[in-house]
Amino acid sequence: MPNKAIVTDWFKSLQDDICKQLETLDGDIKYREDLWDRPEGGGGRTRVFQGGDLIEKGGVNFSAVEGPLPEKIRNALKLEQADFFATGVSIVLHPISPMMPIIHMNVRYFEIDENTWWFGGGIDVTPHYVKKDDAKAFHEILKAACDKHHADSYPKYKKWADDYFYLPHRQETRGIGGIFFDRLNQDKAHDWEFVKNVGSSFMPIYHMLTTNNRTLPYAEEELGWQALRRSRYVEFNLVWDKGTKFGLDTNGRTESILMSMPPIARWEYDYQPAAREQATLDLLKKDIDWIIGS
Amino acid sequence: MPNKAIVTDWFKSLQDDICKQLETLDGDIKYREDLWDRPEGGGGRTRVFQGGDLIEKGGVNFSAVEGPLPEKIRNALKLEQADFFATGVSIVLHPISPMMPIIHMNVRYFEIDENTWWFGGGIDVTPHYVKKDDAKAFHEILKAACDKHHADSYPKYKKWADDYFYLPHRQETRGIGGIFFDRLNQDKAHDWEFVKNVGSSFMPIYHMLTTNNRTLPYAEEELGWQALRRSRYVEFNLVWDKGTKFGLDTNGRTESILMSMPPIARWEYDYQPAAREQATLDLLKKDIDWIIGS
Repeated sequence: MPNKAIVTDWFKSLQDDICKQLETLDGDIKYREDLWDRPEGGGGRTRVFQGGDLIEKGGVNFSAVEGPLPEKIRNALKLEQADFFATGVSIVLHPISPMMPIIHMNVRYFEIDENTWWFGGGIDVTPHYVKKDDAKAFHEILKAACDKHHADSYPKYKKWADDYFYLPHRQETRGIGGIFFDRLNQDKAHDWEFVKNVGSSFMPIYHMLTTNNRTLPYAEEELGWQALRRSRYVEFNLVWDKGTKFGLDTNGRTESILMSMPPIARWEYDYQPAAREQATLDLLKKDIDWIIGS
Repeated sequence: MPNKAIVTDWFKSLQDDICKQLETLDGDIKYREDLWDRPEGGGGRTRVFQGGDLIEKGGVNFSAVEGPLPEKIRNALKLEQADFFATGVSIVLHPISPMMPIIHMNVRYFEIDENTWWFGGGIDVTPHYVKKDDAKAFHEILKAACDKHHADSYPKYKKWADDYFYLPHRQETRGIGGIFFDRLNQDKAHDWEFVKNVGSSFMPIYHMLTTNNRTLPYAEEELGWQALRRSRYVEFNLVWDKGTKFGLDTNGRTESILMSMPPIARWEYDYQPAAREQATLDLLKKDIDWIIGS
């Protein structure tokens, strides 16, 4: 049965494994590691990738924090005063090439005591240019991981991602979605297997996306569009993302939280996309079935 | 005595006057105007400045909206179900030169009925490089406008600006502050004179800042720092600014609200400023008395 130590150790090794694979895949990057302590208890290992051949800016962060529940978290989660423990791995990678998507993953475990605990997490992909074949391959990998959990996990968590990674003020999804789940606490051993499967899906997904897109040609036009799409990423994370808001509200480590920010972002008033860019916008909608294609 | 029509007309003419003066001051820019209607009542005149000789991107927006109070506003303002009227002018200007500050102004009027109404507003300045002489001159203009209102208006609204234009997650003020006030409803005629004085202070302030900074030389290094400071401006507006959040939450016109975004912004993990940039950071603190210099 998973417990704090088991989950923590596995998350640490997931971080190690992903970092090592990313260095190899990029070929021209060494991550920088910052170890940090949380005054109230626990800490983390922030690992930053900056200026690679594939990755322009990103982070693969691990943390395990504990202590008395901060009031804002207590209120938000509707919990009594208690000590808590929370551990997780969070990843955001902004590629150099506008033909490569931005990727995000998070897996996390939260515990008050042996009766009050849950898992959460998700993976979502934000292409600057949506390619239906990639979207299908991505969702198939997620579905395979979900199907081992429950028959209804993929449709449920896929819809949850569509609803979560959404910018109401733009009426756009952040990208092609993925899966999102929270407060997963039905069967600890079985749920933990699922969370491990989600974490283990990250590198196969990123390898697939890299193989399909890394060498595609691009020019100034695509870079300009990438910078605009990155500003939408900023808007989502700073305005709507509950995790970011929570971290900033509860005095988290700002530089670790905001590793998700792109290296650069561009805003232009009332930008009018060309046909190819409009084709991507037309696919930033909820409820697209990427696997069967609808 | 001011009423809806009087306030609306004056705000419109303030927008007209500022736009005309900005075109002349810039010398190489014509604003673009978008007229918009709000489905529930009212509308606005968004005027966008993009690609000038002085101004890289900015907006001088007027709006006058009315209708049933949206639920979120009712809850936030703790008001009963009623019809409301709100009008205002909002300005944000991002200059090309990193030696020129970013400037923001807002004046607004809100009314439910003849007993329930208030004025709000403020001006604040965000230099990429803080110059104490400019800060002093800026605050002196504000103080002169405030002193005609009440003896305690300047200290009170100056402190309010320090507290409002603050990034807790960075432990930085947005810039050198200015004034901020809300729910001003003591003496309608007198308060209205004050609001007009604040609005009329905008161009003298911007002229002063332009005269002192427009022709200062700069290079790549200063442009890089400007892009980083602009990312702080983004963080403030998207994470902490109540007006922006409110507008996006209540289905406002996104392109008008986000005209405050810079043309470009840069994020770098754990950026280490050089001495000159550090000197500016050291001045992004609350409670500096810019006039007497402390």
